[in-house]
Amino acid sequence: MAEEKQLMTFAVGEQMNLMALLKSVTVRVAKNGKQYLDLTFEDRSGEITGKFWDASDDDVKRYQAGRVVRLTGKRETYQGSPQVKILSLRLANADEQSDPAEFVVHAPLKAADMEEEINQVIFEITDQVWNRIVRLLLSKHREAFFTYPAAKRNHHAFEGGLAYHTISILRLAHNVVAQYPNINAPLLYAGAILHDLGKVIELSGPVSTTYTVEGNLLGHISIVDGEIVSACNELKFDLNSEPVVLLRHMILAHHGLLEYGSPVRPRLLEAEVLHQLDELDASIMMLTDATEKTAPGEFGERLFAMDGRSFYRPKENE
Amino acid sequence: MAEEKQLMTFAVGEQMNLMALLKSVTVRVAKNGKQYLDLTFEDRSGEITGKFWDASDDDVKRYQAGRVVRLTGKRETYQGSPQVKILSLRLANADEQSDPAEFVVHAPLKAADMEEEINQVIFEITDQVWNRIVRLLLSKHREAFFTYPAAKRNHHAFEGGLAYHTISILRLAHNVVAQYPNINAPLLYAGAILHDLGKVIELSGPVSTTYTVEGNLLGHISIVDGEIVSACNELKFDLNSEPVVLLRHMILAHHGLLEYGSPVRPRLLEAEVLHQLDELDASIMMLTDATEKTAPGEFGERLFAMDGRSFYRPKENE
Amino acid sequence: MAEEKQLMTFAVGEQMNLMALLKSVTVRVAKNGKQYLDLTFEDRSGEITGKFWDASDDDVKRYQAGRVVRLTGKRETYQGSPQVKILSLRLANADEQSDPAEFVVHAPLKAADMEEEINQVIFEITDQVWNRIVRLLLSKHREAFFTYPAAKRNHHAFEGGLAYHTISILRLAHNVVAQYPNINAPLLYAGAILHDLGKVIELSGPVSTTYTVEGNLLGHISIVDGEIVSACNELKFDLNSEPVVLLRHMILAHHGLLEYGSPVRPRLLEAEVLHQLDELDASIMMLTDATEKTAPGEFGERLFAMDGRSFYRPKENE
Amino acid sequence: MAEEKQLMTFAVGEQMNLMALLKSVTVRVAKNGKQYLDLTFEDRSGEITGKFWDASDDDVKRYQAGRVVRLTGKRETYQGSPQVKILSLRLANADEQSDPAEFVVHAPLKAADMEEEINQVIFEITDQVWNRIVRLLLSKHREAFFTYPAAKRNHHAFEGGLAYHTISILRLAHNVVAQYPNINAPLLYAGAILHDLGKVIELSGPVSTTYTVEGNLLGHISIVDGEIVSACNELKFDLNSEPVVLLRHMILAHHGLLEYGSPVRPRLLEAEVLHQLDELDASIMMLTDATEKTAPGEFGERLFAMDGRSFYRPKENE
Amino acid sequence: MAEEKQLMTFAVGEQMNLMALLKSVTVRVAKNGKQYLDLTFEDRSGEITGKFWDASDDDVKRYQAGRVVRLTGKRETYQGSPQVKILSLRLANADEQSDPAEFVVHAPLKAADMEEEINQVIFEITDQVWNRIVRLLLSKHREAFFTYPAAKRNHHAFEGGLAYHTISILRLAHNVVAQYPNINAPLLYAGAILHDLGKVIELSGPVSTTYTVEGNLLGHISIVDGEIVSACNELKFDLNSEPVVLLRHMILAHHGLLEYGSPVRPRLLEAEVLHQLDELDASIMMLTDATEKTAPGEFGERLFAMDGRSFYRPKENE
Amino acid sequence: MAEEKQLMTFAVGEQMNLMALLKSVTVRVAKNGKQYLDLTFEDRSGEITGKFWDASDDDVKRYQAGRVVRLTGKRETYQGSPQVKILSLRLANADEQSDPAEFVVHAPLKAADMEEEINQVIFEITDQVWNRIVRLLLSKHREAFFTYPAAKRNHHAFEGGLAYHTISILRLAHNVVAQYPNINAPLLYAGAILHDLGKVIELSGPVSTTYTVEGNLLGHISIVDGEIVSACNELKFDLNSEPVVLLRHMILAHHGLLEYGSPVRPRLLEAEVLHQLDELDASIMMLTDATEKTAPGEFGERLFAMDGRSFYRPKENE
Repeated sequence: MAEEKQLMTFAVGEQMNLMALLKSVTVRVAKNGKQYLDLTFEDRSGEITGKFWDASDDDVKRYQAGRVVRLTGKRETYQGSPQVKILSLRLANADEQSDPAEFVVHAPLKAADMEEEINQVIFEITDQVWNRIVRLLLSKHREAFFTYPAAKRNHHAFEGGLAYHTISILRLAHNVVAQYPNINAPLLYAGAILHDLGKVIELSGPVSTTYTVEGNLLGHISIVDGEIVSACNELKFDLNSEPVVLLRHMILAHHGLLEYGSPVRPRLLEAEVLHQLDELDASIMMLTDATEKTAPGEFGERLFAMDGRSFYRPKENE
Repeated sequence: MAEEKQLMTFAVGEQMNLMALLKSVTVRVAKNGKQYLDLTFEDRSGEITGKFWDASDDDVKRYQAGRVVRLTGKRETYQGSPQVKILSLRLANADEQSDPAEFVVHAPLKAADMEEEINQVIFEITDQVWNRIVRLLLSKHREAFFTYPAAKRNHHAFEGGLAYHTISILRLAHNVVAQYPNINAPLLYAGAILHDLGKVIELSGPVSTTYTVEGNLLGHISIVDGEIVSACNELKFDLNSEPVVLLRHMILAHHGLLEYGSPVRPRLLEAEVLHQLDELDASIMMLTDATEKTAPGEFGERLFAMDGRSFYRPKENE
Repeated sequence: MAEEKQLMTFAVGEQMNLMALLKSVTVRVAKNGKQYLDLTFEDRSGEITGKFWDASDDDVKRYQAGRVVRLTGKRETYQGSPQVKILSLRLANADEQSDPAEFVVHAPLKAADMEEEINQVIFEITDQVWNRIVRLLLSKHREAFFTYPAAKRNHHAFEGGLAYHTISILRLAHNVVAQYPNINAPLLYAGAILHDLGKVIELSGPVSTTYTVEGNLLGHISIVDGEIVSACNELKFDLNSEPVVLLRHMILAHHGLLEYGSPVRPRLLEAEVLHQLDELDASIMMLTDATEKTAPGEFGERLFAMDGRSFYRPKENE
Repeated sequence: MAEEKQLMTFAVGEQMNLMALLKSVTVRVAKNGKQYLDLTFEDRSGEITGKFWDASDDDVKRYQAGRVVRLTGKRETYQGSPQVKILSLRLANADEQSDPAEFVVHAPLKAADMEEEINQVIFEITDQVWNRIVRLLLSKHREAFFTYPAAKRNHHAFEGGLAYHTISILRLAHNVVAQYPNINAPLLYAGAILHDLGKVIELSGPVSTTYTVEGNLLGHISIVDGEIVSACNELKFDLNSEPVVLLRHMILAHHGLLEYGSPVRPRLLEAEVLHQLDELDASIMMLTDATEKTAPGEFGERLFAMDGRSFYRPKENE
Repeated sequence: MAEEKQLMTFAVGEQMNLMALLKSVTVRVAKNGKQYLDLTFEDRSGEITGKFWDASDDDVKRYQAGRVVRLTGKRETYQGSPQVKILSLRLANADEQSDPAEFVVHAPLKAADMEEEINQVIFEITDQVWNRIVRLLLSKHREAFFTYPAAKRNHHAFEGGLAYHTISILRLAHNVVAQYPNINAPLLYAGAILHDLGKVIELSGPVSTTYTVEGNLLGHISIVDGEIVSACNELKFDLNSEPVVLLRHMILAHHGLLEYGSPVRPRLLEAEVLHQLDELDASIMMLTDATEKTAPGEFGERLFAMDGRSFYRPKENE
Repeated sequence: MAEEKQLMTFAVGEQMNLMALLKSVTVRVAKNGKQYLDLTFEDRSGEITGKFWDASDDDVKRYQAGRVVRLTGKRETYQGSPQVKILSLRLANADEQSDPAEFVVHAPLKAADMEEEINQVIFEITDQVWNRIVRLLLSKHREAFFTYPAAKRNHHAFEGGLAYHTISILRLAHNVVAQYPNINAPLLYAGAILHDLGKVIELSGPVSTTYTVEGNLLGHISIVDGEIVSACNELKFDLNSEPVVLLRHMILAHHGLLEYGSPVRPRLLEAEVLHQLDELDASIMMLTDATEKTAPGEFGERLFAMDGRSFYRPKENE
């Protein structure tokens, strides 16, 4: 693909001319009675909305979510959000980049590499109870685990985000174990790998992610806790044995506070550490994303998951 | 047993002479170097502490927790708590009431009657998924369910309290179902029967009740949720089927608020009702207990589980 | 009335053709300078808004709030809320249903039946102080009590809702009294009847309900407390006598928490029970309403008075 | 009275020899079986406790609360609280100061002067509704109003404290009215005079002050609100007229926050001002008391009513 | 200027014809593709917005922020906010009032008078450390101090508001010092003068006020604390000497609560008083403004800085 | 020192015989009138208290805080806390270990090694503004920085704890920088080194640590912020330049929440990371300490700084 500017790299007022993916399309009727399309364009730099006025029935058929288009327009702002005033629109030509996957953000690592890295960590889980539960559950949910996002929005909300977030925590965990030798490394690693696995049932999938009924009524913490119980039943592990109780505690407590949905607060050193590393990686990812979208010397958008704070991007020479 | 006054019915300053159970005995050394016994006496009216000074080694052997004694002394108050100044103490004679069970508070219903009443309710759980899970789990934990208290302290903290609290909620639930016909009765009854069943693992047993390691690290909500998952595994029920998800939600949400340890808040009418009926029965039991120990025209002791409030007992003629 | 579909029973995109009440009408000017009407239609299934474009002056005179109309249109959604795209509109013919009362939600019981039921309860208030205060105040505010809603929105926000909510609590209270005999029934019933009576002054009336100045500056709790004081003055009851103090406490404490506007928290068993039954009936009513408007297998709208939670309606076969 | 040092002016370790009032006396039995007296001594500088060992029956009769004694002893500290080790004790001689009133803190103004100052303010309440309500209620509770403390402990917890606190607020209010002329002065003054008047029923009296049953079950806010309603009934004022509603709002809202027991928050400029002046005067009084008991360069005791903060007394040369 | 009605004194529906300042101008494109101007008009009575449709390029050049215009139109309401439907618009003639300063709200006192009043107070700061720090910092930031507003919005958000708010607090402080003689007046005055001085760096200036980067990253409390440290460095005052520590504490603690941005809570009587007087003056100013914009017998708009409360303006005859 | 058991390694009831440091000594008078010593013994395993009865005046002179003694006694428990019943006591012989430093906990690294490690990090602070401020302030407070504890109690409350905590954070920071390359490493390192430096003024010193007046009135955050300002004044750095503002923000925001004493919340990625690493290291240190004092299979003492939670030490075979 020739080096074109991307959606979020245009300044307000600038002319835009680029390829983009139609992420969502809604047909609406304007006050003058004519139909128009409410479009969301996407590429790896982000998303922007625009209105396609006076859409014919052919336009409605042509511009469907998932198609790649060539867009020319003008970058504007509407009520504080970026918007494009569409000047022309057409589907991608045969000789243009038209693979939707090229326009979608995904994890910086390939699924195969992530799987390899996690397998290496599993070798370090020397306790056989934890090792076998982890392997059974990863194997059961393998495909979803390496493609699902880690969230509907906020941090790691991209394809493969769940596995990538897990790997980031494992990397942090390795360093922490090296620095504080009294930490039970196998327990921390097993907890880290499983902590968000319930999201493969809580969320609907890697695209147009929503919460499932199970997600809303049980939550990913109790979902994965139930998965661990099922695994123990299958492996004939005693639910009341200490290794099982410790591992379940790691998952149940990982949100840190009851208010955040953990039914118990951390009561093990390793559970406290897992909770804090989870928060650390999620925060860094969110702030990195937000800062990249912010001009030097400016504050970015308010981040809901950071209590509504906006963050400053220092001037370039810092 | 001849009609004697009971422990808590003596006024401060009054002479006491009655049979009582030694609930706990601790041997301590006084500042003068002699050993003494720190005793807690119990009968169905409540508990009171007293010190037995200058205890001989024979006394230490004689006065052990679980023995019934004849106590004479004087009712006093020490730092706001009732206390008895012991004047004499001896073990119960052969012709005196010496069965410890006669001095312990227990549920107002017999275990057999409670079991019969719960079995009747199970007939009304017409959904076969819920019915079979309930029966399997009740059968698995039958003995503990009918003997455990509902709590370490606070409400229904007596032998059989767990089953009695469950029955009280079921009675309330029947009336609510009759008044509001859109409530799903089988779901409400199944949830009510199982909601606190995890306490048979969270707590150590009917006497000298403490929290187990599982209780502290998992909590009774996740414990019973795990039991339901195990039951489904055994019964070959699909964990993702709606009846199973709904039943798990009933249990997970029954504390009402995340701050109180529910990993999800009620999102079903029946889950909200179960939470409120649980709170209603627990409150009435606690306030009934507290009021009975309070003189007319006075406020009773502060109740930790009611946010530290003390409650007023109106004068007799109300 | 022939069996027609009602406002809220049409699916999005479906053609609508039915009689409805104009609940509110606002004349506005469109950006093209022409006037249009912003209409809210109502029947017993709920409410929906629609815009009547290019309204002539005759239209403005014709379509006034309170008139019954025949509406044809198409069911749409605008920013998440139901809306009708109006295709035609005319006033009801002489042979069509045109009584506004037929389109308005009201209590499921007739005022006369509610009055009879409450009178029966008053016989059970055997304490003469409470009995006479209740009768004096019900008699003073009789008409409003049986026609006012229980709230501006949220629960029981329909004509007669205040009395109906009161009766529902009394029914719950009867069952609770039967199950827990130590509760002072006359005190609980007297408190239940009076607890929300202040709303007849706090709210403006059964239609287009708003808060009055007294409602905003005093609140219905202090309003009814003042009414009780006035009743005592009239009946020559000593304000410092225990029955009066207990009854005032029942009303003052019924919101349960200071944060919810009670100047004191419940300090009597009966006050705690009244608070919880009030909450129980209000919750069930709100959730019943919300669930009825939700499709099976879906979550309904967020309920402000339930802390913003949305509730799930299980699939039909549950 | 010759210039003697007072109770709180001795340093730890210093010999004490002075007259003091026995504020409270409790007879206890020591571990050696002998009775002793737990005494609290008081003078205008504060209070201190001490133990009188091996008390004879004569001692018990002699040293009763309310008697003035000559005390010699040594100033000590026990668990962070001041204490006196008693060396000798005897009742006051005929030629010594033995009037208990000389040892009790009271308001810095005489009752007659306070009454005169409040009467002057009443002349400025030009609205006749407010003027007559204020006069009727002050006249009804005149004696208690000028002798009661403003609180059981914390601020103005001395004889006459209620009236003195009221006057302090009125003085602040005069200055505020002069600086901000849009404030409705008569409303502010009427609210200030009545705001804490309910304490004459909420509290038991000027000495050994406790909460009454009415105080616990209704609270002083609703008590005085009821008094205003009664006054209106007697004066034939319409409870729904605006002046009455405004005055009741002033009282109901004066704690500022629902969490502090106001059933409504201030919704009038004057109600907000009254709330803040109430807090300002109470804070200054508490901090003045606390600072006086603190050595220069030290932090004083933690003040419960100031959220547990302790306050610093700067070194003398500031 | 002939006595004309002002912007906020027209009733809804009334014809408007008056001079006003263009406070802000935004060029937008309507759905029909034509450009229009989104205007905010201002005079001393307040602000109102209006749309100028079909704006030519000449109109865009002509109507710039800061120009004075003659406006005729009709007073309307749009989504609860006041709005003007513009009928005609032109720039001010040579013989009309065209000085923007005449249309902008500013402090009720002239800068020179405020400076004089503050200088008088400085004479009363008899401690030389505090006196010299105050004089150095006031001199350094003199121009900004007398022109900046006290806030971006909410209270004293007008030119000179910072100095005026400071003077109001000083006037309150004088009265408080007179009434409570144990207050350290020089410390209170020095703290009052400096408490908000950091706003001259936190805010961008008197017009179109925004937060600076320093304002967002440091906050005005730490900014002025740093200024005091710099002043001490310049004046060779020891940072660890008690007068410096006390003065810094006055500023650091003046928001009263950690949640409001004070790094320490008040631990000095004077710091507590400063905090409360700051709040008192700010509240009275906000409520005075809000009440002036409210019709008698109505509640005004919700005030964000008063926790979202709206305030009542009593009917005229009160 | 021959391998002896240490203070905290004896079981309840076991005989103790070992060398220990007298950490504190208080002379008290028993109820029988004789003086006794309230002693706290310390070695590197922890602290335990004991009473030395019937102390002669010689004993009082002999057993002073700071002396090393040989203690024989019996390990007991008093109200849940460990206690030793003293059987014999004497000062250390000439041939016994009598260097107090051998009995005191200190940082696991030597001061010289810590200084070397921090100097290495300073080389990585490539921004000259941050580099010079850090060097100036470390040089100014060098001695205290390497000897002070990081807190009065809770985490790193030992000699050298402040520097050791700083180094631990720097080690974590290095790993985080390696994993997330967009983090500004020099800013993070500079912030980490200075973040708690204010404790050298907030706390009184390495032994018997208390809060100073500056500590109470300013807090260590504002203290070090003032130190940075002073450094800038000395180095002629502009307080309004971005590097200075960013560095001050790092320190001001490092407690993360306003409620924890930060006057501003983190608004920079690096500030958020510093806050989380600070919390992570402090938590791991506290939990490591607490777990070491807990028997396998038990929960330890409640930790105030971890919201009162107690932590579980798994059984040995985990």
